[in-house]
Amino acid sequence: MAKQNIYDNKTFFEGYSKLRDREVNANNLFEIPTLKMLLPELKGKRVLDLGCGFGEHCKEYIDQGAVRVVGVDISEKMLEVARTENSDPNIRYLNIPMEDIGSIEEKFDVVISSLAFHYVEDFTGVVSAVYELLNEGGIFLFSQEHPVNTCYSGDGDRWTRDENGTKIHANLANYCVEQRNDSTWFVEGVQKYHRMFSTIVNTLADAGFMILKMAEPFPTPEIHNNYPEYDDLYHKPDFLFVKSVKIPKE
Amino acid sequence: MAKQNIYDNKTFFEGYSKLRDREVNANNLFEIPTLKMLLPELKGKRVLDLGCGFGEHCKEYIDQGAVRVVGVDISEKMLEVARTENSDPNIRYLNIPMEDIGSIEEKFDVVISSLAFHYVEDFTGVVSAVYELLNEGGIFLFSQEHPVNTCYSGDGDRWTRDENGTKIHANLANYCVEQRNDSTWFVEGVQKYHRMFSTIVNTLADAGFMILKMAEPFPTPEIHNNYPEYDDLYHKPDFLFVKSVKIPKE
Repeated sequence: MAKQNIYDNKTFFEGYSKLRDREVNANNLFEIPTLKMLLPELKGKRVLDLGCGFGEHCKEYIDQGAVRVVGVDISEKMLEVARTENSDPNIRYLNIPMEDIGSIEEKFDVVISSLAFHYVEDFTGVVSAVYELLNEGGIFLFSQEHPVNTCYSGDGDRWTRDENGTKIHANLANYCVEQRNDSTWFVEGVQKYHRMFSTIVNTLADAGFMILKMAEPFPTPEIHNNYPEYDDLYHKPDFLFVKSVKIPKE
Repeated sequence: MAKQNIYDNKTFFEGYSKLRDREVNANNLFEIPTLKMLLPELKGKRVLDLGCGFGEHCKEYIDQGAVRVVGVDISEKMLEVARTENSDPNIRYLNIPMEDIGSIEEKFDVVISSLAFHYVEDFTGVVSAVYELLNEGGIFLFSQEHPVNTCYSGDGDRWTRDENGTKIHANLANYCVEQRNDSTWFVEGVQKYHRMFSTIVNTLADAGFMILKMAEPFPTPEIHNNYPEYDDLYHKPDFLFVKSVKIPKE
């Protein structure tokens, strides 16, 4: 099956770029701060970034003291921006699908992936490959769309609203049906793979990772006061974070 | 705050007893088989059962070769049944609230709890106490109501239905609001404590447990064919299971 490369689609790319340009968005308010909070000490570390996109994170890891960063993305269009805007002598950008990372001939202390794994069909394969690429005691930290989000198929409203349009609850359907769900996000047919919470945890445990920390970010009191439009996250979080450590196999 | 002892309420006790008497129920179809699947080898082991109720599980653990079982329950009414129907020279039933297990002067190889932790306010305290009661390398296995269930407050229908009454999706509200939610189950005011998935995982990780396996049971093809009335579990699982192992503190 062909790997999805939606980020090279022109319409998608333009829509996504505009979204990222907005100063206040779910990424800036929730995803990036949570990722930063969970980051291990990067000083002197070798870091692999899976689904690096525009490379902002890669640059940030160098700024935090990493001595080597490899950024992997399936989209050459995204990497073009990365090479222009976030280049560094110690960053290498690699245009391969995440499923092919087994071909990388380096080892890393930290593997990070931000909001990419829900696009990957073979999660088990990627997690096994990450295990092999990590040094003993290495850290594996990722975010993905929350399972209560990825389970929803179709492009309809995921919310039930009152007569004023206020969201009163999220609609939860097919949470236990692990399948590819196609949705529209700038373009039609964006493919996301739904996995239950237990599947994500078991895949990590079976591969040899011990979970250190999870996060499902929602508005802090400050965000609630300044951006009440994100209050719907109290009902249904957008993102799931998992931080784990590679343990030796018996 | 007084610990909830709803199982000693006469109306609740009678309703619950009748529910348990039904041959086909969510416990028999999903909870018990999943618990059995996740049970470690019990031969020669010392087992603690938290919220043991009628003691059926305690007896089962003895049948599987456990040499010692301690069953703890806050409800003396439940333990009266346990002592009559599921007694054994190697089982001791102890009428204390789960929050007081620190007073038990024995160590165990396995601690199990079936569908009780959602009644416990101080989950962190109980998990720490379990860590202390376990021998090195001991197994901690529990089930509880699934977080997409415990988040729902009020006694209304948790489902959105079509014109025929068929459930089309579950209503997900306040998932990120960790609080006590009161509901009606035989009697009014049954108190359940909602905790997010990440809180449950982090509490275990912080206390010194490594997660080995999780489960969110839903109908097998066989159950789907024979009991289609449980198909709503595909949308929203009832139970969450976590199996973990005590690791030494650094």
